[in-house]
Amino acid sequence: MSYEHIAGGVTAAKGFSAASTAAGIKYVGREDMAMVYSKEPCICAGTFTTNIVKAACVLWDKDIVHSGNPMHAVVINSGIANACTGNEGFDACIKTAEAVEEALGIPYSTVAVASTGVIGMQLPVDKLVNGVGAMSDKLSDTIEAGTDASKAIMTTDTVNKEIAVTFTVGNKVVTLGGMSKGSGMIHPNMCTMLGFLTTDLKISKALLQKALSEVVQDTFNMITVDGDTSTNDTLLIMANGLADNVCIDSENADYQTFKEALFAVCEHLSRKMAADGEGASKLFTAEVINAKNKTAARVLARAVVSSNLSKAAIYGCDANFGRFLCAMGYSGAVFDQEDVELFFVSEYGKLKVFDKGTLPEFDEEFATKIMSSKEVTVLINMNEGDASATAWGCDLTEKYVEINADYRS
Amino acid sequence: MSYEHIAGGVTAAKGFSAASTAAGIKYVGREDMAMVYSKEPCICAGTFTTNIVKAACVLWDKDIVHSGNPMHAVVINSGIANACTGNEGFDACIKTAEAVEEALGIPYSTVAVASTGVIGMQLPVDKLVNGVGAMSDKLSDTIEAGTDASKAIMTTDTVNKEIAVTFTVGNKVVTLGGMSKGSGMIHPNMCTMLGFLTTDLKISKALLQKALSEVVQDTFNMITVDGDTSTNDTLLIMANGLADNVCIDSENADYQTFKEALFAVCEHLSRKMAADGEGASKLFTAEVINAKNKTAARVLARAVVSSNLSKAAIYGCDANFGRFLCAMGYSGAVFDQEDVELFFVSEYGKLKVFDKGTLPEFDEEFATKIMSSKEVTVLINMNEGDASATAWGCDLTEKYVEINADYRS
Repeated sequence: MSYEHIAGGVTAAKGFSAASTAAGIKYVGREDMAMVYSKEPCICAGTFTTNIVKAACVLWDKDIVHSGNPMHAVVINSGIANACTGNEGFDACIKTAEAVEEALGIPYSTVAVASTGVIGMQLPVDKLVNGVGAMSDKLSDTIEAGTDASKAIMTTDTVNKEIAVTFTVGNKVVTLGGMSKGSGMIHPNMCTMLGFLTTDLKISKALLQKALSEVVQDTFNMITVDGDTSTNDTLLIMANGLADNVCIDSENADYQTFKEALFAVCEHLSRKMAADGEGASKLFTAEVINAKNKTAARVLARAVVSSNLSKAAIYGCDANFGRFLCAMGYSGAVFDQEDVELFFVSEYGKLKVFDKGTLPEFDEEFATKIMSSKEVTVLINMNEGDASATAWGCDLTEKYVEINADYRS
Repeated sequence: MSYEHIAGGVTAAKGFSAASTAAGIKYVGREDMAMVYSKEPCICAGTFTTNIVKAACVLWDKDIVHSGNPMHAVVINSGIANACTGNEGFDACIKTAEAVEEALGIPYSTVAVASTGVIGMQLPVDKLVNGVGAMSDKLSDTIEAGTDASKAIMTTDTVNKEIAVTFTVGNKVVTLGGMSKGSGMIHPNMCTMLGFLTTDLKISKALLQKALSEVVQDTFNMITVDGDTSTNDTLLIMANGLADNVCIDSENADYQTFKEALFAVCEHLSRKMAADGEGASKLFTAEVINAKNKTAARVLARAVVSSNLSKAAIYGCDANFGRFLCAMGYSGAVFDQEDVELFFVSEYGKLKVFDKGTLPEFDEEFATKIMSSKEVTVLINMNEGDASATAWGCDLTEKYVEINADYRS
């Protein structure tokens, strides 16, 4: 392991500050806006939802990332998603960015915006602009400011999600931190709902995007809560170069070190998001090993954690392994069940429940014990190659239904 | 309309009898086996699950349907699905068919078998064989015998599903009847969990299969309960020719008449299955009109009724139309939200909630009233072509989770 965990999140890296405020956009009595800022211009990279119906802020951010402009700030609100809001919604993005220009003297075209919450409702622009003003006055590079920002972007999340690591490039210590939020409409197909990473690494824009795009495939794109790919999925990374390392501009050992740290950060946030899925009582992991190829491994792992019936079985501690095989069967991957071995694994032990087309006798009580853990893994040995993939989800509970039957009120 | 509804189900058509019995396979105190029989040999057609993991009985039935053999009988059990059961499971199919040969003197290769219930458990062959014996002694062509059969094949279904219609070919009255069962692991991709149709029509095998395969696309393949495509999906139709009509061997007007009746029967059973989805309190229909082409219409309609978040909104009578647009957006169909109009429709009225990229003011109370119906339709006008499709699902309730968290016990 070439990186180390440290305290903090988006303000951990040099030169990044954050702020949050209660702008009263939809929630009452809690902070609902956050801002991350670097005085030093950042190169940036991003991955966005593949949903055809893209939120206005996704269109705005894609423009910035693809333009090659530097990025100085990102402003985020929770409560209203600014999706399905037409031109008026896009205007809200511009006005928010202009408010930052006015307050901090950076070009509005260097300000990303992100929203999460109800779809099909217009943002109150005045409140956003006031919020930007309030936050600009209290930007801070303390750990607490980053943590507060990670709390302000929550919707149905029950815990905030942040992480920071350091690693070394040459003789320079580089820091990478991030925050993200879930927790419904999570079935990322490019990246997750909202995630923001900051680093003081010096790296070329092309390699920053390449590393992010590749790491996302095995982290944010491998989690699911409910199979619904959001209109707002956005993952941004800002790199301001203040670590002063020799700039990474080829896929050398330093690049690999960075990628390993990036993977750790993204994996951490992904797992946290899955475990905090709406109504979830457990983290449900599917680990596929020895698959024919990487694509098949991913498809199989995702199908298993996406299946409502598998998720309900995990909730009920019911070793109903047939549901996992069933999900694999309709995943689209081609395989022979006579090759497959299936295990339940947790801190309490490991148990084989399906053995290449035959049904091993197993101790139901032990199976229930294994599944009673807060973290349950279904380990699937395909015995047909050497590719592997892991997907993270959560159980399906009555609480999920409760939360979503009346989300708007 | 060229057909008429009559009472009954699988025994409505001439020459078909049925029986059911309590074989004690898994359930206690209720009938769990059924048999449908025609002394006259039947041509048959079938559609089956596309799940790679196919139940043993699916493999058995596919062989019969594709062999060109006549079909005389189908034996069905509920409680255990005979899926993921390897060679031992396939042997159970053969032994069941042999028991019918012994009892009724028809070749075992003309006996289809079907199972529904828990995956990954072996069938008790002795009980099956005894059940066949008991049923063979009490075959009856009464309406009641058909109804009892439709009840014996239920698992988590709360109501039995059967229907019969008559139509005329030349001067001959033809009858078509059927039964089916849901109600979890329903996301058919060829046909649904289990459906059995009987008719005294005289028709070529090729056209019987063609009509069935086509009708299935817009009926059984357009329902979903939980997005899980079963290992056991089987739809069989048996035609014994006893109506004595001039044999339908081209796609003439008679063929169209039959197809219309077949559509009505399949649509009825599909809707009933969706409405009786596990834990469902409502039938949830998505009707897509004026889509670019048929494929897009189907994909969009299915995505909407499949979305957990949409299903939860329907349950909560929450006019959270953004979730429907979101599901359309990730469906895979390409469209422009600026073309789309979205309405909620029920017996209580019709309300536009999204209008080509803009958000019409609407009366939330009226929206809730519309959605409080037992049958709620989301009507989606794509305004981009002339294709349409309808998909049926149900709401997502706490009860679904309850049922599935501990299905096996």
